[in-house]
Amino acid sequence: MEEIVPKIGKANQEAVRRILAGDPIWEDVRPAREVIPGMTENSILHAGPPVTWDRMAGPMRGAVMAALMFENRARTPEEATRLAAGGKIQFSPCHGHSAVGAMAGVLYPSMPVFVVRNAPFGNVAYCGWRDLAQASGCFDETTLKNMGWLRDVGMPALSAAVRRRGGLELKPLWARALTMGDELHNRVSAGTSIFARAIAPYLVRAVADTSAVAEVLEYLADFDLAIVPLTMAGCKSILDAAHGIEASTVVTAIARNGVEVGIRVSGLADQWFVGPAQPVKGTYHPGFTQEDGCPDLGDSAIIETAGFGGCAIAAAPTHITVADKPGAAGDYTREMYEITLAKNPSYPIPTLGFQGIPTAIDIRKVVETGILPIVDTPVAHKEPGKVRGVIGFGMSRPPMECFVKALTAFGERYLP
Amino acid sequence: MEEIVPKIGKANQEAVRRILAGDPIWEDVRPAREVIPGMTENSILHAGPPVTWDRMAGPMRGAVMAALMFENRARTPEEATRLAAGGKIQFSPCHGHSAVGAMAGVLYPSMPVFVVRNAPFGNVAYCGWRDLAQASGCFDETTLKNMGWLRDVGMPALSAAVRRRGGLELKPLWARALTMGDELHNRVSAGTSIFARAIAPYLVRAVADTSAVAEVLEYLADFDLAIVPLTMAGCKSILDAAHGIEASTVVTAIARNGVEVGIRVSGLADQWFVGPAQPVKGTYHPGFTQEDGCPDLGDSAIIETAGFGGCAIAAAPTHITVADKPGAAGDYTREMYEITLAKNPSYPIPTLGFQGIPTAIDIRKVVETGILPIVDTPVAHKEPGKVRGVIGFGMSRPPMECFVKALTAFGERYLP
Repeated sequence: MEEIVPKIGKANQEAVRRILAGDPIWEDVRPAREVIPGMTENSILHAGPPVTWDRMAGPMRGAVMAALMFENRARTPEEATRLAAGGKIQFSPCHGHSAVGAMAGVLYPSMPVFVVRNAPFGNVAYCGWRDLAQASGCFDETTLKNMGWLRDVGMPALSAAVRRRGGLELKPLWARALTMGDELHNRVSAGTSIFARAIAPYLVRAVADTSAVAEVLEYLADFDLAIVPLTMAGCKSILDAAHGIEASTVVTAIARNGVEVGIRVSGLADQWFVGPAQPVKGTYHPGFTQEDGCPDLGDSAIIETAGFGGCAIAAAPTHITVADKPGAAGDYTREMYEITLAKNPSYPIPTLGFQGIPTAIDIRKVVETGILPIVDTPVAHKEPGKVRGVIGFGMSRPPMECFVKALTAFGERYLP
Repeated sequence: MEEIVPKIGKANQEAVRRILAGDPIWEDVRPAREVIPGMTENSILHAGPPVTWDRMAGPMRGAVMAALMFENRARTPEEATRLAAGGKIQFSPCHGHSAVGAMAGVLYPSMPVFVVRNAPFGNVAYCGWRDLAQASGCFDETTLKNMGWLRDVGMPALSAAVRRRGGLELKPLWARALTMGDELHNRVSAGTSIFARAIAPYLVRAVADTSAVAEVLEYLADFDLAIVPLTMAGCKSILDAAHGIEASTVVTAIARNGVEVGIRVSGLADQWFVGPAQPVKGTYHPGFTQEDGCPDLGDSAIIETAGFGGCAIAAAPTHITVADKPGAAGDYTREMYEITLAKNPSYPIPTLGFQGIPTAIDIRKVVETGILPIVDTPVAHKEPGKVRGVIGFGMSRPPMECFVKALTAFGERYLP
């Protein structure tokens, strides 16, 4: 025991060093099959820890059906269901492929993915550019049409713009958005505005097709959550660089598939530690209640794993999930300092006297304090194809089981 | 005396009603001479209360020289000086022409001006689209070139974009910016970002000249203060609708010409009440001190008169002039509630529990409490042509003299 404690300390110091040094640069938007390692024509990646078709949550099933119909592997929802259940399609978690996906997180071969390089370490991460309806389990004609727009109009335009710009640094963009009331997960009005403003001139200069440029700018103007997949890819790139450090107890992923929530830990290789996904307490759109919601879903909790989102929600006092409870935003983030190892000085939170965001969740601290990471999350309807988009926003926490299992596994591996 | 107090109360109620109902819509960008009432080829409008050439502050003289050279009325700074001093050019305050101008506020016939209509009242106000160097007193070749870009490239492009959009409502834009850390005078990063994001698609659809579109988007992306003249025109339109109410003690303009600060009061027609302009305490750019600064300058204090800027600075805790003093932003705004008659519910301030911005400054309250309105202001160099742009930002207050003189005049006019 005397030997392992300083060893963990040193390992975590290294994990913290790598997270703080993370410097993600958005480089491109490419079709998933071209860039994501290990992706084949029969691959479908999904959010969260591994899950088989027969156990999949409703919105994830719907998103898979949309993907198969979009790629002409199936003509009807029934055909898609048969194909998905038939064993030919290989399902695996995005996280195993340097990737993440929002909500259902269903990534299919022709899907546009944001490509982000973590400059100091050279590793690259990807996030699907999702249509929100598809990511929430819709598979109707409008959804397929919108998926087509992302692939055929949005992807070539944004790709050309960012290449013309020579990449876009996410660090200053995120830092600035935090001073503008974003927590960068679901309150991203500032981030998306800064992003649209920054990329607009490059779109115009790089893309000859004026109507494509106008449509991309309309998409960015009208859709407040536009920047989320880019932020997710950036956070994934930062945490992947801190993954795989011998004896580190730092969490490198929190991910939800709607049935289970899983975490990954730097010193525990690619093992998942899972527990049941919980219903999300929050603010539901009119006509919906918690009963209608799919339990905790999506890889977007990578944003919290990097210290933003629910962990940095003190920066977003006007966000829907906390605005009605004075002081709640600050309280949540202060609690997160109890289970993290550092404050990231690159991302100061104005409302907390410019302290950095809580960084590097330590499984030991979670188990010791009983405080679970808090995730600011959208909620999908539990039935596929019921609703276009999300039905609400709320705060969720991964189950304690994940952390207890991880700590147990850590003990088994590292204690003499 | 028994009769006048309720009469003032009723008049102020009406002034407050009109300010709260203000709903400015940006409609166009046109050459000043085409739209500003009473403007002729020999007109030069300027910021603040009336001032003659011989008493003009350095940066205002420089801005006039730039205007005369730009319009080919003079070939050299010396010629421009002679022309300006010769009596042919008619100088008058912007405020007398439904207009405002930032810093020197020098509006010349061909200058592009933002045209804003206050929808419920129908009145229109204007603000010059200034080149910041010109507005700070520069008249070199680069300045004249940039003035040419605003007129020949920027104006037609923005005009086409906003007309295609059918106008742009400023109210939701301002409200949103306040939730993103803007006070809307000098911390306008959010406002400019939202603005650029909103207008970008219309620029692309309305303007065939791609390089003009790209240049305008570059201007908006690179210049954080881009939205200020539009906000100024909007505030002017709101306050003009509340001007001229018999027996109202509400301030409808605070304006600075670098030599004197003047206020106008709703119930006191177009009279100016002036006192000496003060040096600005603040944060100066490296190499400059308060000694180098021109005293309080510009019509942009119309923003404070409407309740934004220094009055709403609680919304901008990260702004340069208050970020280093914890709590200062909130203290300033709380003080402003002491001298105003209402809180505008359209513009809630997140950090003050979503109270509305302090609205309708009452000259009686200023004199009674001794609290002066606070203006968050940029500072120009006192010598014309010395520096391209501003040399710092600070907080200024109009002299108490303005309010005492106004209250005295009010008594003379309304007391039996």
